[in-house]
Amino acid sequence: MTARTTAAHGVRGKPDAAKAKRAVLIGLDWGTTSLRAYLFDAAGEVLDTRISTAGIMNLPVPAEEGGFDAAFDEACGVWLAQGSALPVLAAGMVGSAQGWVSAPYVETPASEDALVASIVKVRAACGVELAVVPGVLEPGALPNVMRGEETQIFGALGAQAGAHAAPASRPAAQAQTQAVAQTLIGLPGTHAKWVVMEGASIARFYTFMTGEVYAALTAHTILGRTMKRPVVPDTAAFLRGVTVAREHGCAGVLATAFSTRTLGLTDQLAADEQPDYLSGLLIGHELAGLEAVLARRDVELAACAPRLIGADALCERYRLALAQFGCGGAQIVHRATERGLWRIAVRAGLVVGAGQTA
Amino acid sequence: MTARTTAAHGVRGKPDAAKAKRAVLIGLDWGTTSLRAYLFDAAGEVLDTRISTAGIMNLPVPAEEGGFDAAFDEACGVWLAQGSALPVLAAGMVGSAQGWVSAPYVETPASEDALVASIVKVRAACGVELAVVPGVLEPGALPNVMRGEETQIFGALGAQAGAHAAPASRPAAQAQTQAVAQTLIGLPGTHAKWVVMEGASIARFYTFMTGEVYAALTAHTILGRTMKRPVVPDTAAFLRGVTVAREHGCAGVLATAFSTRTLGLTDQLAADEQPDYLSGLLIGHELAGLEAVLARRDVELAACAPRLIGADALCERYRLALAQFGCGGAQIVHRATERGLWRIAVRAGLVVGAGQTA
Repeated sequence: MTARTTAAHGVRGKPDAAKAKRAVLIGLDWGTTSLRAYLFDAAGEVLDTRISTAGIMNLPVPAEEGGFDAAFDEACGVWLAQGSALPVLAAGMVGSAQGWVSAPYVETPASEDALVASIVKVRAACGVELAVVPGVLEPGALPNVMRGEETQIFGALGAQAGAHAAPASRPAAQAQTQAVAQTLIGLPGTHAKWVVMEGASIARFYTFMTGEVYAALTAHTILGRTMKRPVVPDTAAFLRGVTVAREHGCAGVLATAFSTRTLGLTDQLAADEQPDYLSGLLIGHELAGLEAVLARRDVELAACAPRLIGADALCERYRLALAQFGCGGAQIVHRATERGLWRIAVRAGLVVGAGQTA
Repeated sequence: MTARTTAAHGVRGKPDAAKAKRAVLIGLDWGTTSLRAYLFDAAGEVLDTRISTAGIMNLPVPAEEGGFDAAFDEACGVWLAQGSALPVLAAGMVGSAQGWVSAPYVETPASEDALVASIVKVRAACGVELAVVPGVLEPGALPNVMRGEETQIFGALGAQAGAHAAPASRPAAQAQTQAVAQTLIGLPGTHAKWVVMEGASIARFYTFMTGEVYAALTAHTILGRTMKRPVVPDTAAFLRGVTVAREHGCAGVLATAFSTRTLGLTDQLAADEQPDYLSGLLIGHELAGLEAVLARRDVELAACAPRLIGADALCERYRLALAQFGCGGAQIVHRATERGLWRIAVRAGLVVGAGQTA
């Protein structure tokens, strides 16, 4: 897969007539603040990528004035103009109540077939029909929701179905009572998610507001006032934070976060170590919380081989932090979004998958 | 004690010549964003109170241009002009590195005598000498610091030395091995503190950034976007948050905080319930963390009768939350700051205490 992108007035990527003629599918990863459009060939390879800032909360014109159509045309019009009518599959917040069409949540346990069965369609003004993947809801005392991640998750499974399958997590007690393999998938970010797959279904998941809380603490509390950004990320300070969360974290993050300040006041943590220390603290608390909720179902974090989906640098930080928790087998999965869009499109019959015949 | 205050150009409170003549001490609670000045008579009763916004980060003119003198004159000049030379005792951030004079921290265990022995003096331009109470530092992997609270804490002890002493906490295991009574004191607020007293010494303490994190989450994350402030605080929503933190909090507050949003998305939490629910969640996590750190030293939170120092409405919320943790004996202590300033001034020999002779 190649993703060629160039910048031009909010949309990056130049059209290419030859590529458009080989195209069989447009896939959209349409979130709150961005729209990423992928053009696929018949082998599921990405021919072209266009990236726009026209997320559903940042449309070029208001939604009620045709904002979704405008954003879609801006991102994909050149492809549609040059090729034949292409099927379009979209995932993410575009299917939320604030999106182009509401694609109600599928409840856990959520299989790929359940997602496909709940796809909702919307017709653009240009006549093209978009198939929108629903999000997933886990009901309960603390409900959890995802939109977009479900597509990445099935993309990550797809990636692993290939050459080098990672060992699934080994649930200590459940291994004897059930044959279904469990897999742990982590999606670090603003609202980090940790997903337990049972077989090829999303069984349950947890959301940690780690990225957003980090941003709020550094920009809007006393902790940010003494911080200086280091020139390069300080891995030692990061790991120190992880260790403090793991070993001294029982008072909770509301308490340990203050040590960013007091270690500074007592000359034990330099200003330019404080950002990465706090990042390590928060990610350490996230992993300690994950460890605790997994343990309640007799799954040992250290025995898991999680797959990580997200930006490389952030996934690498999580890989280092996981190792502090004895979890050394984490693997970073690339291009999960593109793979997931393709995989669901095949399952939904929008395209014919490799190895299948029309 | 009466605290008569009126507003006038940042300083509230009118001078009274008769009162000034009976005065024996000025006490200052001088923090980051406010300066509260108390005029005491020989019985330790507050004759007059003046409240100013001239905290050390909000002086009327910059510190290097005499800002501390200006703020002090503005708050206390009328008292000093009318009475004889009065001793002045100050507590709070005025003794920090950014204050009028640096009063280095006293380390735990910190007795009142240790505080008094480390008082630092500074002479104002008007010739009056101020005695500044030091803060307290608990060294360790997660250091803790306080400035100002130490004075309130000894004030709360003083209040209890009177008529109705609350039962001290009953440490389950330590009761047999040591005779020193332990008392738990809570100071809710921006940076909430929980202090374990052993006898009349500050043995150890914990800081929770609960108030500041609440403000950051509501103003600067997605959680605030769906919130509406209720007309009156919603106690049921608050207690629901406390219960969720207590019963489903093992993933940590980074995870449970997101339920403020997902319960809203699933129509289980109205917009005007969300602020108090989140407040309950955070205070619940604070108390769960406190319970955990106390338990490591065999102290059971439910068996404690904490004293609470702070704004009445906030202390009342904590009293309700503590009851959810089985801790029903919390008492709100009033006027801890004034009592503490008086008590330390007596101990320091600045004034002659009731029952003493000159």
